[in-house]
Amino acid sequence: MNSCIAPRKTALLSSLALSCVLAIGLALPAAAQSPSPSDVEKHKTTPGGKYEPSLDVLKEGELEAPGAKEGVPSLTQEEFNRANQIYFERCAGCHGVLRKGATGKALTTDVTRESGYEYLRDFINYGSPGGMPNWGTSGDMTEKDIDIMARYLLNEPTAPPEFGMAEMREAWKVYIPVEERPTEKMNDFDIENLFSVTLRDTGEIALIEGDSKKIVSVIKTGYAVHISRLSASGRYLFTIGRDAKINLIDLWMEEPKTVAELKVGSEARSVETSKMEGWEDKYAIAGSYWPPQYVIMDGATLEPLKVVSTRGMTYDTQEFHPEPRVAAIVASHYRPEFIVNVKETGKILLVDYQDIKNLKVTAIDAERFLHDGGFDSTGRYFLVAANARDKLAIVDTKEGRLVDVIESGGVKPHPGRGANIVHPTYGPVWVTSHLGDETVSLIGTDPEKNKEHAWKVVQTLEGQGGGSLFVKTHPESKHLYIDTPLNPEAEIASSVAVFKIADLTKEEPEYTVLPIGEWSGISEGVRRVVQGEFNRAGDEIWFSVWNAVDQESAIVVVDDKTLKMKHVIKDPRLKTPTGKFNVYNTRKDVY
Amino acid sequence: MNSCIAPRKTALLSSLALSCVLAIGLALPAAAQSPSPSDVEKHKTTPGGKYEPSLDVLKEGELEAPGAKEGVPSLTQEEFNRANQIYFERCAGCHGVLRKGATGKALTTDVTRESGYEYLRDFINYGSPGGMPNWGTSGDMTEKDIDIMARYLLNEPTAPPEFGMAEMREAWKVYIPVEERPTEKMNDFDIENLFSVTLRDTGEIALIEGDSKKIVSVIKTGYAVHISRLSASGRYLFTIGRDAKINLIDLWMEEPKTVAELKVGSEARSVETSKMEGWEDKYAIAGSYWPPQYVIMDGATLEPLKVVSTRGMTYDTQEFHPEPRVAAIVASHYRPEFIVNVKETGKILLVDYQDIKNLKVTAIDAERFLHDGGFDSTGRYFLVAANARDKLAIVDTKEGRLVDVIESGGVKPHPGRGANIVHPTYGPVWVTSHLGDETVSLIGTDPEKNKEHAWKVVQTLEGQGGGSLFVKTHPESKHLYIDTPLNPEAEIASSVAVFKIADLTKEEPEYTVLPIGEWSGISEGVRRVVQGEFNRAGDEIWFSVWNAVDQESAIVVVDDKTLKMKHVIKDPRLKTPTGKFNVYNTRKDVY
Repeated sequence: MNSCIAPRKTALLSSLALSCVLAIGLALPAAAQSPSPSDVEKHKTTPGGKYEPSLDVLKEGELEAPGAKEGVPSLTQEEFNRANQIYFERCAGCHGVLRKGATGKALTTDVTRESGYEYLRDFINYGSPGGMPNWGTSGDMTEKDIDIMARYLLNEPTAPPEFGMAEMREAWKVYIPVEERPTEKMNDFDIENLFSVTLRDTGEIALIEGDSKKIVSVIKTGYAVHISRLSASGRYLFTIGRDAKINLIDLWMEEPKTVAELKVGSEARSVETSKMEGWEDKYAIAGSYWPPQYVIMDGATLEPLKVVSTRGMTYDTQEFHPEPRVAAIVASHYRPEFIVNVKETGKILLVDYQDIKNLKVTAIDAERFLHDGGFDSTGRYFLVAANARDKLAIVDTKEGRLVDVIESGGVKPHPGRGANIVHPTYGPVWVTSHLGDETVSLIGTDPEKNKEHAWKVVQTLEGQGGGSLFVKTHPESKHLYIDTPLNPEAEIASSVAVFKIADLTKEEPEYTVLPIGEWSGISEGVRRVVQGEFNRAGDEIWFSVWNAVDQESAIVVVDDKTLKMKHVIKDPRLKTPTGKFNVYNTRKDVY
Repeated sequence: MNSCIAPRKTALLSSLALSCVLAIGLALPAAAQSPSPSDVEKHKTTPGGKYEPSLDVLKEGELEAPGAKEGVPSLTQEEFNRANQIYFERCAGCHGVLRKGATGKALTTDVTRESGYEYLRDFINYGSPGGMPNWGTSGDMTEKDIDIMARYLLNEPTAPPEFGMAEMREAWKVYIPVEERPTEKMNDFDIENLFSVTLRDTGEIALIEGDSKKIVSVIKTGYAVHISRLSASGRYLFTIGRDAKINLIDLWMEEPKTVAELKVGSEARSVETSKMEGWEDKYAIAGSYWPPQYVIMDGATLEPLKVVSTRGMTYDTQEFHPEPRVAAIVASHYRPEFIVNVKETGKILLVDYQDIKNLKVTAIDAERFLHDGGFDSTGRYFLVAANARDKLAIVDTKEGRLVDVIESGGVKPHPGRGANIVHPTYGPVWVTSHLGDETVSLIGTDPEKNKEHAWKVVQTLEGQGGGSLFVKTHPESKHLYIDTPLNPEAEIASSVAVFKIADLTKEEPEYTVLPIGEWSGISEGVRRVVQGEFNRAGDEIWFSVWNAVDQESAIVVVDDKTLKMKHVIKDPRLKTPTGKFNVYNTRKDVY
């Protein structure tokens, strides 16, 4: 189904592009937040193994098979368990755990019973141009599975178990207490230039030294680590798996290891640490998809301290939503606050961590389906994509209020954390690419010296095509890089486009194509090239060449000045590398 | 079953008293918050008609009868509707709409199916010494009803419908737009000395002039108005019915009338208005039992502006609670905030109303089952009872933080809004009586000049007995009044105890008994005497003599100086009077 992703220079908002966005939406049921593409749901064309849903949501007995109702087909316990597993793997990302709908339509029984068994069966089998995958004719689901799913959808949804403080404390492990950890750095690595690389399908991260390009450690983590984040001091590395498992890794140890571990739910995407002066390394926070909540933890041990539900009213219609998932979380540099983005209700929460017994939260009405975003170059303004609405919400983190919600200028913005450049004409701008088309949008971010351009799309560039996940630059760089790993054309998926910032004064700036996949020397697989990440000095950019778990993958290092290939990292342990997080750039929010 | 309410001077914490508290809890499933006893569930010994649950929760078709499950008895749609009605009338107050338990035990299917049909049937029939009423042997439920209820409890609970912004806007009515209302006071009443009196079972309030003691208007409202509150200016009177209907009454009109109306759910208890300087009359807020949420409204029209769910984690175990009901709400005088007390999660919310699009809420971890409370004499500290925990939580509304949670010194504190006196020994103290025993507790409230006494129970007095709902005094008064309307002894229920403040220096201060019921001249009925309320000048106190709807009731006015009967208000329209709210004292929080 990726064949409908907008190819090179598809006209904006064509009906093709529009239906593609939805299809991409379905291919990304819990689309990548920032900046790892680790949660790309794998249909036939994507590399890698199958997503193993957390067993927590599938415990037999805890979910009761619904009983026979008049006119409603029943399922055996075995069929019900199978349907639950398929639903969480294939459907929940778009339609929601409680089937209330998100990117996909609502599948509550008032809707499904109206449609009836045959309609559901055929819809699952053949899909729709509106974006529903053709699960049957694609070969992903058997006839039997489709029959089970159609019957399953005619019964009431069952919610996975809650995961509150009791469950968290049971899951919490401190392997090395604080007092047994080193009091100074015990290794020779240049920690500031270390890269934490997600090995998506093996449930690991690789720590790679920036200068030597050597793997110094491979550490077992949660499944498909979505992001790595650094404590403010840079000592502690936090990873969060899609299965809601957090690892706390001490980079001061002779060999960096997991010193504490916590599970915060059955599915999650975000972790962050307190960055405000005076609060460095004190707290961490993680946001979950299920249960819909966030938890504040002790920064040195992951001890869970405060769990807060996000269930509540949508910002616009003000109706209760039972499953508002937590997307990106960032830490303010201006106030002792975490900035928590809640997808389904469209609220941005400023969570003040000064006094967690008297927790102060400002809930900003923004836009629905908030996903990922980042700061402007000053760190004062936070820009976040409401991807299913083609919008960007901008928050003034100093004043704690919404600045504006604007059109992103393209279809389904996916900024990761975005890229900040100083535009020769418009001054400081923040950049996002789009999943749904080739548009790269530049938004003015300087309301003081460039007031007329602030919070407006001042320029749109045409990239290689749709299917972009991340843009990247660095204050020392004169370039802007745009990946397109989800583009259906192999050539586009395995290369990146680079604009010269100085060329942005031109009417139609041209880009250079870097054939990263080719440079990797790998000949098998789709060789998706994903997520550029700069080193500490800002003079080289690393790209993952992401193949399936049974194929060779690599990391290609590019010289930013010359745009030439500088180095290829290959290693048998480097399986399915996706997101990469340079310690210095991540802890300082340099992007 | 009220026969087990602790009679005169029962020893504290005797096993009798303990079981009585639970029984009272059950007799008060949604016990009076402040200061009207309008939500006393009527068992055989209480006066008045039956509580009619809101039809909203009983709409046929919206609640689906659960289907047959193996081993689980089924109900016909008719039986299910009947069971739902009985459940909301008799059971929900203690066991919760979702049967998660509160004052009563959890009745979720994991519990009930463990017990089985016969156990449930017998328990409902015979009750228990732990506090469950004997619904069958008391004659309240027929054998058939008990059979239905036992089967009902073996099936999954069904939640009443949500009530979000769409439903509120549909229910919202403005009868007289702001521009058509008078621009100055058009009547001759001394508004500041007007009393708004709840006529519980007729769904009305009576406005009574303080000086003439004449009823100037009887206004149709929601059912069993729980409280009346005044806008900061004193112009607008707000009432909230137990059926979640709010009336906005304009006291400037020649004949005061309802100018706007709103329904905020299916069951509610609290309404309040913005009191901070600069925000007078601007906003109102109402809190609901179902759905568990609060809504901020325009103060002049009741237009619903912001709905906020209270569903979330309990403060202590931090597990998700699906039904955290909103109890008392007061408005801060120190900050532009509403103070919202959430029962089941034990959180006190400081809701900053300065910017409701970027709503800032501080959630203070306090104690479970928060109910009602009031300010100290300075208005800075708010004291609220966690009644099922025999505790008081104290909040510093100036600093926005919890001061302490202390034992109340008795069983099941029920302060209403409490009473502030200057104690000859301990300085400023705040007073609460108790539902579960005869204790009257005095708590020091002056951390500056009487630091050693602050936030401690400095003295306990022995009142007439258990079953007290309200204490009352006035800055001009030298007396402290304690009612006991729920005491099973008719003599105690129909009289009040009065302490002289000057006598509190004595080891065992004695009280005078005022035989208010007798003074009323009414000879029929239980003549429960409830809720003293001072006039504007503070020289007379009014008590309701509350009889059943088909019996005569009255209001007795007592001269505070002489403790003699001064006047009896009788009127055919004065049916089931309970709470009374003097305009000046209510709007200025004088108590």
